[in-house]
Amino acid sequence: MKKNAFYAQSGGVTSVINASACGVIEAARKHKDKINKVYAGRNGILGALIEDMTDTSRETSKTIAQLLHTPGGVFGSARFKLQDLRKNKDEYHRLIQVFKKHNIGYFFYNGGGDSMDTAHKVSLIGKKVGFPIVCIGIPKTVDNDLPFTDTCPGFGSAAKYIAVSTKEAGLDVASMAKTSTKVFILEVMGRHAGWLAAAGGLANETRKKAPQIILFPEIPFDKKEFLKEVNKSVKNNGYCVIVVSEGAKNKKGKFLAEIGTTDAFGHSQLGGVAINIADIIKNNLGYKYHYAIADYLQRSARHISSKTDVEQAYQVGKKAVELALEGRNSVMPTIIRKNDSPYKWTTGYIELNKVANKERMMPRKFISTDGFHITAACRRYMVPLINGEDYPPYKNGIPITAKLKNIPVDRMLKEKFMIK
Amino acid sequence: MKKNAFYAQSGGVTSVINASACGVIEAARKHKDKINKVYAGRNGILGALIEDMTDTSRETSKTIAQLLHTPGGVFGSARFKLQDLRKNKDEYHRLIQVFKKHNIGYFFYNGGGDSMDTAHKVSLIGKKVGFPIVCIGIPKTVDNDLPFTDTCPGFGSAAKYIAVSTKEAGLDVASMAKTSTKVFILEVMGRHAGWLAAAGGLANETRKKAPQIILFPEIPFDKKEFLKEVNKSVKNNGYCVIVVSEGAKNKKGKFLAEIGTTDAFGHSQLGGVAINIADIIKNNLGYKYHYAIADYLQRSARHISSKTDVEQAYQVGKKAVELALEGRNSVMPTIIRKNDSPYKWTTGYIELNKVANKERMMPRKFISTDGFHITAACRRYMVPLINGEDYPPYKNGIPITAKLKNIPVDRMLKEKFMIK
Repeated sequence: MKKNAFYAQSGGVTSVINASACGVIEAARKHKDKINKVYAGRNGILGALIEDMTDTSRETSKTIAQLLHTPGGVFGSARFKLQDLRKNKDEYHRLIQVFKKHNIGYFFYNGGGDSMDTAHKVSLIGKKVGFPIVCIGIPKTVDNDLPFTDTCPGFGSAAKYIAVSTKEAGLDVASMAKTSTKVFILEVMGRHAGWLAAAGGLANETRKKAPQIILFPEIPFDKKEFLKEVNKSVKNNGYCVIVVSEGAKNKKGKFLAEIGTTDAFGHSQLGGVAINIADIIKNNLGYKYHYAIADYLQRSARHISSKTDVEQAYQVGKKAVELALEGRNSVMPTIIRKNDSPYKWTTGYIELNKVANKERMMPRKFISTDGFHITAACRRYMVPLINGEDYPPYKNGIPITAKLKNIPVDRMLKEKFMIK
Repeated sequence: MKKNAFYAQSGGVTSVINASACGVIEAARKHKDKINKVYAGRNGILGALIEDMTDTSRETSKTIAQLLHTPGGVFGSARFKLQDLRKNKDEYHRLIQVFKKHNIGYFFYNGGGDSMDTAHKVSLIGKKVGFPIVCIGIPKTVDNDLPFTDTCPGFGSAAKYIAVSTKEAGLDVASMAKTSTKVFILEVMGRHAGWLAAAGGLANETRKKAPQIILFPEIPFDKKEFLKEVNKSVKNNGYCVIVVSEGAKNKKGKFLAEIGTTDAFGHSQLGGVAINIADIIKNNLGYKYHYAIADYLQRSARHISSKTDVEQAYQVGKKAVELALEGRNSVMPTIIRKNDSPYKWTTGYIELNKVANKERMMPRKFISTDGFHITAACRRYMVPLINGEDYPPYKNGIPITAKLKNIPVDRMLKEKFMIK
């Protein structure tokens, strides 16, 4: 009997995670001889644990194709990490139980490092209890921190958003600087690594234009050097644009976002690193400033996604199905770079146990010697990833996105599972 | 002898103010029999006062055409208001003196309400001293607060950015809400009127989707009602997206952005209204939240400008030249709406003394009865303004923008002018 497949989305979503879903579902539909239906977990792995799944075979091919240009996670994602195998086997056994009941033979899990770990553990427990389940992790993260792949789908589009926004805001500040705002600060994501902050550096080819300064998590914040650099830019260029990572830290390793301030009621201040940087500039240099905090906008901005990224997100989804059908188990599709310029790439794969719980940090050689900008090597790596535009269709000025029927799969287990 | 023209940009810039510059320069170039050269003031009116101008006739037609897709103000803008005529005639006399020396017979001033007032005063002083100068104001402001025109160039594009971003971030939060972020707050511009906040309401056609709540400057903030509404949305939809105007106020008329907090050193907190709203939600409902502050990104986002807006910005520039050549003086081109759907419009004009220093507030009938959303009338008005896309060209993943030679006009006055 043909097996069904389970697909779920995990962790912070991106503007192209649904493009990977599209790749999985379209590839599975082309192999109906081997894969019966693709069930989607609602809210990630929770959907399997509490048997809350929707049947994607009930969606039209048009709807599935629209996933290519729909940001967010259409099936719902979850920030939920399965516990360690040795500590809590219940969760894993429940997954196997659900998979058995629904005749699921393929487990596709679309997420970051934690998710690769989960997919790996599911394959282990499958072997152990003698239930054949093919587990494929599908890479996704704007943080670009998965190893063994040239890049992670989601990163290129967020990077493009940041680069484009930095260029645009830079032109704005440059024109205001004579009589008004002289410093502009853009706060971007990247708690552990400076990949996204580095993307700001692609806005222009020279430090005479925005951004003049990038603050990376990798480089301990040196207030004196920083202020000197800000002042230099205002004196030489008339203004200064700063891209700061939410993960920027001081020399003691403390996040700049957490430094300093409590409000009148003694609450710790909620503002982030951009506000603290603004405060430092105001108190020491007195320049008029503005700041923007991109937050979710950067990772959901499908309207400015990179064409490379959309294509790669789709291809890793498709490849996941192909790997499964080739009989690979416990692997993750990867992007392999063949050439920088013109960018050439293909897909490959890597074993999940090698990927799981490993972070790829940004190489020091991608950051300039003074620590405030990116290098030519970084540009060479990153430009191809933000290259090309892939615009969604619009109606009445607003992007059209997929509207799924989300028809539930009938529940078959009597016992309810309590999430701890 | 043919006269030259002076063109300058004033106040906060937009993603399409250079499209108006393009309209002025291209129209002037088509009437070389009447207009010799267009000189651009560097940094707005300061350029005239201190005789700091560039000669746009030295730019290629290709460069001028690229202004159509270049955000910011390419000649530099200024936040600088001429003093009252009766208080300080020096500034006005200096302008006339510069115009005389450079044979300038046309004054095109591209800005908001203050700038229309300035253009009007220049025409008055011209008459008084017997120097013939044709003064035309060209409307520009993302705030959409100029009267007598259907809309102000700059607004439609910022509105589109906000509507699109709200839709995209809404899909992101919706997918995270089960286990993580339940409330997302987007702070937008609009110190005095809620036009930009209202644009967030275009993201979706129903309040079941983002944004569920809009906080307008026009509606005094009612904490209890607000919290009730947030809670209702989280219960019914699983999440809540809030678009808040930087101009939102409490019942006493105080900006929410300024309420409450000073830091550990007694400085007033720099964070804005989004942070205070987040704080209220955290302390009263405890939901996990995220917030974004769009700031300059919303007004410089040429990559997602509305086609209607780009076209209107160009046309008011062109019309300004045509009005001048028809012998009109002290007027501003306007947009006249002929039909809502399909949107039909044409250009007209209004006397500057009627426009100067007047603000157009958002009608109460554009805000829903409960004060938390927009009405069908608001949609009818606003949808055409965000309609259509007008993408810039890209290279290496980044938008291409105009690079001007900015060749200075030789100074001809001996006396330097001291700005007070």
